[in-house]
Amino acid sequence: MNAEAVLQRLSATIESRKGAEPDSSYVSSLFRAGHDTILKKLAEESAETLLAAKDGDKLHLVKEVADLWFHSLVLLAHHGLGPGDVLAELARREGVSGHDEKRARIAP
Amino acid sequence: MNAEAVLQRLSATIESRKGAEPDSSYVSSLFRAGHDTILKKLAEESAETLLAAKDGDKLHLVKEVADLWFHSLVLLAHHGLGPGDVLAELARREGVSGHDEKRARIAP
Amino acid sequence: MNAEAVLQRLSATIESRKGAEPDSSYVSSLFRAGHDTILKKLAEESAETLLAAKDGDKLHLVKEVADLWFHSLVLLAHHGLGPGDVLAELARREGVSGHDEKRARIAP
Amino acid sequence: MNAEAVLQRLSATIESRKGAEPDSSYVSSLFRAGHDTILKKLAEESAETLLAAKDGDKLHLVKEVADLWFHSLVLLAHHGLGPGDVLAELARREGVSGHDEKRARIAP
Repeated sequence: MNAEAVLQRLSATIESRKGAEPDSSYVSSLFRAGHDTILKKLAEESAETLLAAKDGDKLHLVKEVADLWFHSLVLLAHHGLGPGDVLAELARREGVSGHDEKRARIAP
Repeated sequence: MNAEAVLQRLSATIESRKGAEPDSSYVSSLFRAGHDTILKKLAEESAETLLAAKDGDKLHLVKEVADLWFHSLVLLAHHGLGPGDVLAELARREGVSGHDEKRARIAP
Repeated sequence: MNAEAVLQRLSATIESRKGAEPDSSYVSSLFRAGHDTILKKLAEESAETLLAAKDGDKLHLVKEVADLWFHSLVLLAHHGLGPGDVLAELARREGVSGHDEKRARIAP
Repeated sequence: MNAEAVLQRLSATIESRKGAEPDSSYVSSLFRAGHDTILKKLAEESAETLLAAKDGDKLHLVKEVADLWFHSLVLLAHHGLGPGDVLAELARREGVSGHDEKRARIAP
């Protein structure tokens, strides 16, 4: 299963839920509930990732990181952005290595 | 730029830093500092994502989500996992739609 | 209204809910749901505090910080601790000033 | 040690650092760094509280909750608020019990 295909399809699905009825899908209910609700979900998934990691439960950890990425994609979509923007940023940093990576990330 | 290529290369770079000297790279210093340090960084990036989103600063938001995904990959690597595990989980959920998505995600 | 009285009474109420039926109170339902649920609530309240602060909504901010402290007290109670333990720690640091505060806090 | 006295003194100390030179104290450096820095610290302390709680390390947990409350006070001070505002809110909820507490907290 190719990452490009998965992220593209997921992103398209999320986009298609933007105008949809809240009842019709979880994602459309998130969009309807608004920006703060999306951000709270992201924060929740981040906390759940910590808890799963502390438990050392790999299967649970994978599910929580998937939730974290999924809600990141919903947040990006809310702002008119997509996974391609994040991957381009990650690729841009790829040339850089060692502690330079960190400086590159910290730089405004 | 293909997502598969970016994530594979990033993941390989992170793996290669596992045994490296902490001075030689930011990622190796994270691995050396240990699991809790990686988790704190993830929590920080999640908070910074919230702040950037509330500011409505798209460029900043992309950088923070990139940081969030990056540190997720470091956490996964610490547990012997990689982006493929998360993408397989996201793909698995793809067939499912609407509020079923949510139930699928919540299910143990 | 005296802080000592408020925290003592709140702490006593929380303690009294430990063995109670989950249906009878929100706090007893938290204790029944367990440690991870309490921690998720704490993380949620922390995120909601950030959002209220970014909105510059003082009334909302006070409510969210109250929620954060409240769920901290529930967490402390789960571990057999109370507000007195936290206040003693804060008092202990009081003699210390300037950047020494920070070092005192960071010290293991 | 009386909670009222500890919180009053702590709050007064924090207030006194508002105009001070950043070099002179950790709190004045936080005020100088600004609102987002204070919020990031709060988020960090929340995450560290989770980690200490998962480790079941009571002494560490007390220190992290103290850090969380301390940075809450700095945040409140930034907004011209103090511990009295939070305690008044907690006292206000005290009459209410059971699941009503939760509804009271959730109410706008």
